[in-house]
Amino acid sequence: MSTIPLDPTPAVGVLTVSDRSSAGVREDVSGPRIVEWCKAREYRVHEYSIVPDETSAIVSLLTQWADDGMDLIITTGGTGFTRRDVTPEATRAVLDREAPGIAEEIRRKGLNATPYSIIARGVAGIRGRTLIVNCPGSPGGVSDSLAVLESVVDHAIALLRGDDAPHGIGGDDNE
Amino acid sequence: MSTIPLDPTPAVGVLTVSDRSSAGVREDVSGPRIVEWCKAREYRVHEYSIVPDETSAIVSLLTQWADDGMDLIITTGGTGFTRRDVTPEATRAVLDREAPGIAEEIRRKGLNATPYSIIARGVAGIRGRTLIVNCPGSPGGVSDSLAVLESVVDHAIALLRGDDAPHGIGGDDNE
Amino acid sequence: MSTIPLDPTPAVGVLTVSDRSSAGVREDVSGPRIVEWCKAREYRVHEYSIVPDETSAIVSLLTQWADDGMDLIITTGGTGFTRRDVTPEATRAVLDREAPGIAEEIRRKGLNATPYSIIARGVAGIRGRTLIVNCPGSPGGVSDSLAVLESVVDHAIALLRGDDAPHGIGGDDNE
Repeated sequence: MSTIPLDPTPAVGVLTVSDRSSAGVREDVSGPRIVEWCKAREYRVHEYSIVPDETSAIVSLLTQWADDGMDLIITTGGTGFTRRDVTPEATRAVLDREAPGIAEEIRRKGLNATPYSIIARGVAGIRGRTLIVNCPGSPGGVSDSLAVLESVVDHAIALLRGDDAPHGIGGDDNE
Repeated sequence: MSTIPLDPTPAVGVLTVSDRSSAGVREDVSGPRIVEWCKAREYRVHEYSIVPDETSAIVSLLTQWADDGMDLIITTGGTGFTRRDVTPEATRAVLDREAPGIAEEIRRKGLNATPYSIIARGVAGIRGRTLIVNCPGSPGGVSDSLAVLESVVDHAIALLRGDDAPHGIGGDDNE
Repeated sequence: MSTIPLDPTPAVGVLTVSDRSSAGVREDVSGPRIVEWCKAREYRVHEYSIVPDETSAIVSLLTQWADDGMDLIITTGGTGFTRRDVTPEATRAVLDREAPGIAEEIRRKGLNATPYSIIARGVAGIRGRTLIVNCPGSPGGVSDSLAVLESVVDHAIALLRGDDAPHGIGGDDNE
């Protein structure tokens, strides 16, 4: 089903969820920040899209990208409290297995920057072999979230790929 | 549908969930503590009720109060491990969208007072335009929880009302 | 329904979830570590089993043990990111009520040992009167998790049994 060529380099999709950026009313700053981070890590950015805060648009792209064989999908935006913020619900709808610890740590680390971090409602988890992580919409929130991912993402991707990953807490290993 | 007059001041419902307080066997200390906190913040306390640990009673009041247009509902009690503790399940049943970071932070801050904080099972989230937050039953647990809410609740309510809130992590904003 | 004799000493089931240990390809180190911890606390270890990473096997044993009247079931393994890791999903399927704070704290304390702690997907909660807790597969992760349980497990079991537990945050008590 995967349409992405096999490659040791992880393939990433970056999804900005924002009514205003989607309508061209405001420049997307957060998405490009994730793209830069990926390039600095020498990941392949296979897709970068902007969609409005619509459940169907989010679900549709996440599903397609995961089923195409992405290793990692990072979203930004739509995790807050306004009426239009539905990214966590749309994401949960496509996940096979949740990874709540990533979302917990993103919120906790975000507290260093702002107390509002605790109202970010982002989720993280696995669809097939793809890790999907919601980041907040603000560029600062994105940077804090990427700092959390930094220390675990290569290991997580290796486990999802079934590579001979170093044994550890993430595997089924009890050694 | 809202029956509560429009007013810049947030409208709050306070719900004590306790078999014994409901039966009049024990004075409710925690509910009044929340009421005091609301008054100190100049919130309007529209409702204050005591119900037994019954799912139907909890669901019924939460639904009615949220659909009446409350900005905030704070519950106390029924979040623990006894057989009768069903407040989190009853609350989740009425939520449209969860806000897990608030519940995580209430537990985490509670650790300063007692290790038992990690067995509090409270949830938080949004129904329509209403933020609903479960606090533990003890007055100490309530005070710790209110201290967590203190730093985010005005911003959260503004986002739920669709006011022109300061841009931040809670909104759909990626600026 | 309980088949376990009444006794003030808590009855515990220990479940190792591992394809390799189940196949006899690798010695189970983590399960015995939990058994030792139980004995040091003078708990009765009623069951200790090893099953492969199969949802049906995990669900079947957890259900049987809880319905037999165990006070506590501790699992190790299967909480990670590999394709076969399904322990959290199997556990959630048998829970009546989740206790997310225990899983949050296990991950958070685990950060002292490894950043990979945040990709552990374990859950905790209650079925009937039984507390069920997922630990990571590694012996180090197990030890860290048991240290978290240490401070709350006697109180949690007392509340689940309906004993006259000390009033506190875990009960429905608002005193």
